[in-house]
Amino acid sequence: MTKGADTRQRILDNAFRLAARDGLGGVSLGTLADDIGLSKSGLFAHFRSKEELQLEMLRTASMQFVENVMVPALRKPRGVPRLRAMFDNWLAWASTQQGGCIFVTASVELDDRPGRVRDYVAQQQQALMDAIARAAEISKTEGHFRKDLDVEQFAFEMEAIYLVFHHAHRLLRDPKAAKRARAAFNRLIQTAAAPV
Amino acid sequence: MTKGADTRQRILDNAFRLAARDGLGGVSLGTLADDIGLSKSGLFAHFRSKEELQLEMLRTASMQFVENVMVPALRKPRGVPRLRAMFDNWLAWASTQQGGCIFVTASVELDDRPGRVRDYVAQQQQALMDAIARAAEISKTEGHFRKDLDVEQFAFEMEAIYLVFHHAHRLLRDPKAAKRARAAFNRLIQTAAAPV
Repeated sequence: MTKGADTRQRILDNAFRLAARDGLGGVSLGTLADDIGLSKSGLFAHFRSKEELQLEMLRTASMQFVENVMVPALRKPRGVPRLRAMFDNWLAWASTQQGGCIFVTASVELDDRPGRVRDYVAQQQQALMDAIARAAEISKTEGHFRKDLDVEQFAFEMEAIYLVFHHAHRLLRDPKAAKRARAAFNRLIQTAAAPV
Repeated sequence: MTKGADTRQRILDNAFRLAARDGLGGVSLGTLADDIGLSKSGLFAHFRSKEELQLEMLRTASMQFVENVMVPALRKPRGVPRLRAMFDNWLAWASTQQGGCIFVTASVELDDRPGRVRDYVAQQQQALMDAIARAAEISKTEGHFRKDLDVEQFAFEMEAIYLVFHHAHRLLRDPKAAKRARAAFNRLIQTAAAPV
């Protein structure tokens, strides 16, 4: 890594650390400059605004999400095995992110704050819903799901299970959160299944 | 109302207005004092700390939730009609709260911030889960639900639908959010139903 790329990476790492506790809104350029030992103008050379930095954090998280959740799932057989892998990888993602899933936090934080950051979060969430709906559509083609299944409804309900898992695991510290999420997902798969 | 009670109410109203945009963390005693035209010590006479004020906001919201969601549902016939009323009132609550449901916001904001405010939110959320599980248990007694239904799992999945409704309605501004939430709830009721 060049020195510039290295500094940029250090800024991002520290920004993720701040956001884990205080959310995206808690990422302050002044605090970051102090923590890293940069002048504020030194930091500005990398990120010209808090908004730029927040967008870069979300882009980084999106890439990691694709790498850790979607790509390994796409290597699984088409249909239900692929959907199951997506779901399992998604739960693992929520459990391992320091401070929780940045998209869940950002969704709640930004829903009343119009702007580029909110737009990016909404667009990424919609893209994920679309990807799940496509995987459910493929499950129809494979004969795993019934032909009249509403795949957007399926995606909506899969997201529901993810959100309640995040909630139960992180706020309530419910030791059964993962078990309950899997039971809910199995019920979702069962009611979507093609008749035998 | 006495003048003291009136001032206290004005502080709370303004605090809710700030929280609607910036979350509980965005409620600043300094800003509030300025907005209302009080000295900081005048404000301290009502709320000695930000934490006190946040707790009072959550207590106020809890009372309103009980009044608007739970009490009208308890007037409905025992079993599924009561559960349906809870669900409908709950969706209406999320749709009408300025800035969204304060408990959803607080859950995400506070999950990494140990303390009395976080404890209160977790305790209230657990109490709601317990109330739903009890209503599902009554639905068994009434013969609406099958005897082997896991009522805590039922509550977990009902909360899931609420969270995804909040997400789709507020972040994605999905015009179908309520319709999809109702479809998910109907599926939940159907798979819980006693065999006919």
